[in-house]
Amino acid sequence: MKLGFIGLGNMGLPMAKNLLAAGHELTVWNRTQAKAAPLRDKGARVAGTPAEAARGAEAVFTMLSDDHAVEEAVFGSEGLHSGLGKGAVHVSSSTISVALSERLTEAHASAGQGYVSAPVFGRPDAAEAKQLWVVAAGAKAEVERCRPLLEALGRGLTVLGERASAANVVKLSGNFLIASMMEALGEAFALTRKSGVEPKVFLEVFQSVFARSPIFERYAQLIAAEKYSPAGFTMRLGLKDVGLALDAGRAAEVPMPLASLLRDSFLSGVAQGHGDLDWSALGALVAERAGLKRGSS
Amino acid sequence: MKLGFIGLGNMGLPMAKNLLAAGHELTVWNRTQAKAAPLRDKGARVAGTPAEAARGAEAVFTMLSDDHAVEEAVFGSEGLHSGLGKGAVHVSSSTISVALSERLTEAHASAGQGYVSAPVFGRPDAAEAKQLWVVAAGAKAEVERCRPLLEALGRGLTVLGERASAANVVKLSGNFLIASMMEALGEAFALTRKSGVEPKVFLEVFQSVFARSPIFERYAQLIAAEKYSPAGFTMRLGLKDVGLALDAGRAAEVPMPLASLLRDSFLSGVAQGHGDLDWSALGALVAERAGLKRGSS
Amino acid sequence: MKLGFIGLGNMGLPMAKNLLAAGHELTVWNRTQAKAAPLRDKGARVAGTPAEAARGAEAVFTMLSDDHAVEEAVFGSEGLHSGLGKGAVHVSSSTISVALSERLTEAHASAGQGYVSAPVFGRPDAAEAKQLWVVAAGAKAEVERCRPLLEALGRGLTVLGERASAANVVKLSGNFLIASMMEALGEAFALTRKSGVEPKVFLEVFQSVFARSPIFERYAQLIAAEKYSPAGFTMRLGLKDVGLALDAGRAAEVPMPLASLLRDSFLSGVAQGHGDLDWSALGALVAERAGLKRGSS
Amino acid sequence: MKLGFIGLGNMGLPMAKNLLAAGHELTVWNRTQAKAAPLRDKGARVAGTPAEAARGAEAVFTMLSDDHAVEEAVFGSEGLHSGLGKGAVHVSSSTISVALSERLTEAHASAGQGYVSAPVFGRPDAAEAKQLWVVAAGAKAEVERCRPLLEALGRGLTVLGERASAANVVKLSGNFLIASMMEALGEAFALTRKSGVEPKVFLEVFQSVFARSPIFERYAQLIAAEKYSPAGFTMRLGLKDVGLALDAGRAAEVPMPLASLLRDSFLSGVAQGHGDLDWSALGALVAERAGLKRGSS
Repeated sequence: MKLGFIGLGNMGLPMAKNLLAAGHELTVWNRTQAKAAPLRDKGARVAGTPAEAARGAEAVFTMLSDDHAVEEAVFGSEGLHSGLGKGAVHVSSSTISVALSERLTEAHASAGQGYVSAPVFGRPDAAEAKQLWVVAAGAKAEVERCRPLLEALGRGLTVLGERASAANVVKLSGNFLIASMMEALGEAFALTRKSGVEPKVFLEVFQSVFARSPIFERYAQLIAAEKYSPAGFTMRLGLKDVGLALDAGRAAEVPMPLASLLRDSFLSGVAQGHGDLDWSALGALVAERAGLKRGSS
Repeated sequence: MKLGFIGLGNMGLPMAKNLLAAGHELTVWNRTQAKAAPLRDKGARVAGTPAEAARGAEAVFTMLSDDHAVEEAVFGSEGLHSGLGKGAVHVSSSTISVALSERLTEAHASAGQGYVSAPVFGRPDAAEAKQLWVVAAGAKAEVERCRPLLEALGRGLTVLGERASAANVVKLSGNFLIASMMEALGEAFALTRKSGVEPKVFLEVFQSVFARSPIFERYAQLIAAEKYSPAGFTMRLGLKDVGLALDAGRAAEVPMPLASLLRDSFLSGVAQGHGDLDWSALGALVAERAGLKRGSS
Repeated sequence: MKLGFIGLGNMGLPMAKNLLAAGHELTVWNRTQAKAAPLRDKGARVAGTPAEAARGAEAVFTMLSDDHAVEEAVFGSEGLHSGLGKGAVHVSSSTISVALSERLTEAHASAGQGYVSAPVFGRPDAAEAKQLWVVAAGAKAEVERCRPLLEALGRGLTVLGERASAANVVKLSGNFLIASMMEALGEAFALTRKSGVEPKVFLEVFQSVFARSPIFERYAQLIAAEKYSPAGFTMRLGLKDVGLALDAGRAAEVPMPLASLLRDSFLSGVAQGHGDLDWSALGALVAERAGLKRGSS
Repeated sequence: MKLGFIGLGNMGLPMAKNLLAAGHELTVWNRTQAKAAPLRDKGARVAGTPAEAARGAEAVFTMLSDDHAVEEAVFGSEGLHSGLGKGAVHVSSSTISVALSERLTEAHASAGQGYVSAPVFGRPDAAEAKQLWVVAAGAKAEVERCRPLLEALGRGLTVLGERASAANVVKLSGNFLIASMMEALGEAFALTRKSGVEPKVFLEVFQSVFARSPIFERYAQLIAAEKYSPAGFTMRLGLKDVGLALDAGRAAEVPMPLASLLRDSFLSGVAQGHGDLDWSALGALVAERAGLKRGSS
């Protein structure tokens, strides 16, 4: 296919390479033109503006750092929006806001252009090694048209439906999960260090017990299925154990705000009569506070 | 070896079975005697009191539900403490408080008895299948003496040092990590559900991107090594992304208290001039608030 | 003076009345014209558009519900911005964002118009009774020119400096203080109710000990002066007492997330070696996390 | 009356003086005897042990720093418990845990002794000036017997009922309210400082708008009465304003964890369909999470 690619940073450059390697014809644009050199050497054309990269292309990728950069590249003078032909698709892989994704959906639609939101999971080395995971959403026909392109970028693809911004929500949720795990690890390392356990020893436990086991997956399944009964381990016991962790943190002088949050949530579950549900019913409490009913969306 | 085993619940029963299967001689005690029947059928002796289960044994395990149950079984009349011989070891596998573990350390030491704290990771099915992971701490000679017993219970063992209660801190930290992941998953599922993504689809993403990948492990390594620079992804970008997740939650009416906590922590990192560190430096902020210095414990 | 007044809701209507009563000449505008009737009866002119209300006026007030309403009334077609004469002043009393206040500052400046941000504290009954408290910021000359108007609205005025948006920050901070007190009261009432104390009895204690005493004022003085030593009551004791409140909440099954936040903050203070400072040094911890140095701004 | 007084620290000493001044006969005890000198000069007897201070007394006060100190003075060898006569009362004014207060209730009852829990609000200067506020609970007859003593200590007394530990819950709740206000003030001062408002100017606003006005009292009344409708200011507007405060904090790089907590709570209220209730319905959300039903306890 004839493609445009806008944004040749740490992520964009290897992604563009993989599209070239898959046999597509590429016109690229980057604010700093020098970064385009390695692609030109492999046969890509280098455009002077985003509009030029978009002209005549069937699909144009953007892979930029934030909302502001995407807005400029798309809506700025000589932007993608003015160059993209009717029926052609903008594939947005940047991590941007839901609000901007919705604005792009409308703007492209009213110009007779397509829009697919397709953010990726993985760091630059994964992009290089074609090991990204892509999550895509948008009008079905357009997502299907882009499928071979998206599959050329990584090891797998999940299609999320017709609402393009859903892909942005999923990408943001994924980064949120990573940050959550880092905060949790930070608190656990601080507590164990101050209790005399060397970080490399606690790391060994983490690797043995969690990182290479299906434990988190199993809990994700329970929450996805809202299957909180019968309990494997009750909320009441969860409250007890998090309480003991906080007591240990008190004694070792380690503030653990995430543990405090969990304690209050377990306590709330118990106070409301859910003490005998599985402790994964933390998920039910979150859903309830969001006004969600069981099994609905 | 000649062993006692106190507490034959969902976890204790399969653990005791595995010790029997490994060729040890077992005397067991459980508050509800009926639960001991399957072990008697396999050759275990059934004692009338914890003290009786302890008499003559080289090591006695306790696997009970909480501090209160352990206190009664150990210090109650006809408790383990009064029956255990000089030089024999109490191996405590229950999830109990650091404070009780320290009290047990002292009480056994002053009676000339040994004490090893050896909690286990894994649910009843893992106990059954000899797939538990054991974390043990206590006087070196005693831990080594018990090593074959602990190895008979699961697929691996981490020895944490001479301070018995460190094993309890590690066990509590592990349960805290699981609860953290559940809260994070709960918030992510609520956000994606209200954004139109079916739970089973987000589950697929979680499985593909996180559960079966080394991603959490890599971050645990960074935090263990306190290696926050050069950044793969900066705190500033972490702040941006968590901020966008909160904006999405605001729009979809999904409260995300863990995301709020992360945002405040990233913002604090940025405000204090650490915006260009890797976002795993969340761990550094936790350590600093705990009064820890880099590289010390 | 010749004035315009835009927005005749629960707050705007009584404010406009007080300006009329102070002898000023008023042209008013409201989206729903009917609401202007009581003012017309008292001699005000009713305009058909915000621009018309602004034409020929020396100063024009806006008192609208949110950013969106202010943007429309100011920048919409036939908006205030197009009607206001050179040298005339827009006085914005709505509770709006800092960002919009800064945008208004620039937009008016570049049109040769003045802009004063002057939000008010008080509910409709206070507006009626001329008991509002006004906080104003903007170019000195313009604030001074508007002073008699602002003084006609309430019982007092604090001038905050030349940066108009500072007044919006102060208004938002005030509302934040009220909400904080409500959350704290909510948690305290829940805890005491579940401990058998009737709400009206705890209310009596609150009235006797807090509401009619200078206690909060004294702590505000300590934090404003950053005077955390010598301690009247130490952080260490604060940690103890909040810990006991959480223990009581645990026993009565009352989740207290604000108490958890305080506990973690006191614990952090103690862990970092500040346990002997006055417990108002909570303020110092907040400042430090914000990257503020002692005594600077 | 013939009284004992145990604990002559910053608070105990002036309280004991006021009892002497009211004409009571006092025997005092303090760990460091030197501190008793000023009282001896005024006619008090100095005992060598708590038991001795209790012998023959109709009522004995304890005013000590924490649970540990009270336990020692009451249950230690030559403790108050062994010296107090049948029918005499222990009046506990220390800020201690609910659990210890309940243990004291039982221990004294089973020895035929009375127990009144009577913690005080106020700092040492208030104790000196007889300006404390006392909250008392315990068996009605005993509280009434002690009433003149409690009234001799301060400017007022609230009797909380027959469950002694309720007075401890109320004292802890009061200290929690103060700490909450300090955290809120800390965040507000940090935000306004970084926005260019000098602390002394924001202090002036706080004094004018909050400290010397019935504003907090009015909200306490709403929460006590659970009167959340009709709304004076809705949860939806509360959500908006706290959101704007957080946005301002984001821009000025000021982490505001209490504001985050409030935002999540308002958002939860809105998501659950309570957006049109008065924003003081924060109190309803807390009560609900604690499993409380409207109007019950």
